[in-house]
Amino acid sequence: MVEVHKSKMSLNGIQQPPYNRNKSIGRQFLEVAQIIGDVCLLFLYLLYSLGDAIYRYVVPPTPKSVKGEIVLITGAGHGMGKELAFLYASKGATVVGWDVNKKNNEETISEINQRGYPHAYAYYCDVSKRDSVFEVAKKVQQEVGDVTILINNAGIMPTHPILDQTQEEIERTFSINVLAHCWTMQAFLPAMKKNNRGHIVALSSCAGLFGLENLVPYCGSKFAVRGMMEALHEELRLEKLDRIELTTVCPYMVDTGLCKRPRVRFDRFMRLLTPEYAAKAIMKAQQTNMKLVTVPNYMLSLTNYVRLFPLKGAIYVKDFINAGLESDL
Amino acid sequence: MVEVHKSKMSLNGIQQPPYNRNKSIGRQFLEVAQIIGDVCLLFLYLLYSLGDAIYRYVVPPTPKSVKGEIVLITGAGHGMGKELAFLYASKGATVVGWDVNKKNNEETISEINQRGYPHAYAYYCDVSKRDSVFEVAKKVQQEVGDVTILINNAGIMPTHPILDQTQEEIERTFSINVLAHCWTMQAFLPAMKKNNRGHIVALSSCAGLFGLENLVPYCGSKFAVRGMMEALHEELRLEKLDRIELTTVCPYMVDTGLCKRPRVRFDRFMRLLTPEYAAKAIMKAQQTNMKLVTVPNYMLSLTNYVRLFPLKGAIYVKDFINAGLESDL
Repeated sequence: MVEVHKSKMSLNGIQQPPYNRNKSIGRQFLEVAQIIGDVCLLFLYLLYSLGDAIYRYVVPPTPKSVKGEIVLITGAGHGMGKELAFLYASKGATVVGWDVNKKNNEETISEINQRGYPHAYAYYCDVSKRDSVFEVAKKVQQEVGDVTILINNAGIMPTHPILDQTQEEIERTFSINVLAHCWTMQAFLPAMKKNNRGHIVALSSCAGLFGLENLVPYCGSKFAVRGMMEALHEELRLEKLDRIELTTVCPYMVDTGLCKRPRVRFDRFMRLLTPEYAAKAIMKAQQTNMKLVTVPNYMLSLTNYVRLFPLKGAIYVKDFINAGLESDL
Repeated sequence: MVEVHKSKMSLNGIQQPPYNRNKSIGRQFLEVAQIIGDVCLLFLYLLYSLGDAIYRYVVPPTPKSVKGEIVLITGAGHGMGKELAFLYASKGATVVGWDVNKKNNEETISEINQRGYPHAYAYYCDVSKRDSVFEVAKKVQQEVGDVTILINNAGIMPTHPILDQTQEEIERTFSINVLAHCWTMQAFLPAMKKNNRGHIVALSSCAGLFGLENLVPYCGSKFAVRGMMEALHEELRLEKLDRIELTTVCPYMVDTGLCKRPRVRFDRFMRLLTPEYAAKAIMKAQQTNMKLVTVPNYMLSLTNYVRLFPLKGAIYVKDFINAGLESDL
């Protein structure tokens, strides 16, 4: 029978029901010894991780080549997606552009061809629809080959107070910014897993690191991307698929047309990023196997440090920086 | 004409195009002086926020009364929702239980009535459908009154690798765990705004703080909840609606039936929480106007500190704790 021991453990000031234990003293002793050993090891590992990060900072890793890779970019008809398509093509990758805007997408690809890079292909795809993703993915596999770098870039950003967001806007925000990532993962991961080789890049946002007014659904969607990529990273790691890399990128406001009414206090240090600049930073993050980066770099550390303060403190920092988006209504 | 100044500012190692400036030296000087002043103020504010937090820790705020409040709880037929319904009723609140499981919901409410609290009402509602939310919200308003405390608790958690998650599971995870929060916000915020009074509680999860294997869509949905609540907090703050409180709660694994195959290493300190325990912690967080809490409390600080380490370090901590959910397939 299980012996019930009345412990007085209390968390959050509320008492938990008593803890059942049925372990011998000897076994408990061994467990404690093991834990102490593991704690020591953990501290050594943590020190190592810091040392490794410092080393990587001083001696940055060489960007890996993308020559011969098949790069699929969603939302290639516009903004960062378009710039990414140019960049990857110029470095010798085969580019597969997806967009729901057929005309823009074909323009991107034909511009690439005109610049002298023949390996670029345009496909119409509504990434918010799973059937559409799977159908076009199959075509790409047959006509171009296995996608080795997937860049989930397509996104929308309706910018107004939650009560003014329409049902359609909210649903589309999640189906394009979040669910589409699930569908493309499901379509392209199997081949990457089979080869234990590949790279998935997901576009989150600084609005996926902290909440901003007028962007309730958008912030939700960009937080979600970060969460899904972290979870997927754990899945692949535990399956020992150590050659499938994941990169999540959180750009600050980018001048792609999505930011209609930006508010920037420090226009010297925090003005809108150009799509070219953001695309270069994304590509660099991918080529150096970064897991999570912000553009500019310092936003991630800033956020992490500010999160150590109570919310009140974080809000003072936000008000000091005073950057955000006004409602576009 | 705008004078173009060739600055060599470089972020992420990539050069931004030159910065346009058309400000006089005098104006620039004033701006710099203002910024220096603001930085000093910011540090004082940050110190104040720390002092305030320490004070609140030493002298915890008195929980506010919920007597006479109209509390709407989604997913009241089961688990934490059911326990919350009991707790709020027992403290004199009027309880409105919503659930898509009519039988369970009515059982919760009739149990409350049997315990001698007559002010409890059951409504069938599929929170994932906006029309359903608005229709039932109107009925509640007419039959019970304006909801003053909204607890977005309903949620599902399909637990298996991303490639085994069905389309329906992924879509339902987001429509129940995330979109439903948008619909209930849109349904109940207008009255709260009119009265500048109310409280919205959202159930996120520790899986909304860090990614876990087998939970790609679920982690996405719970990260999203956190992001949306932070964004909404900013919206209300900037509208000066300072008496509408928001509370986001991230429980660790709770024994509600959702966690089918939990894996726990430190079963003394990290075993599954009982729904009663989690519900008490949620109610306490609401009554003390906490913005973001984890259950147990220490998980939030732990996560924030671990995030200061490189990802490699964070993974060592995760492996050390070794708690998670195995696939339920």
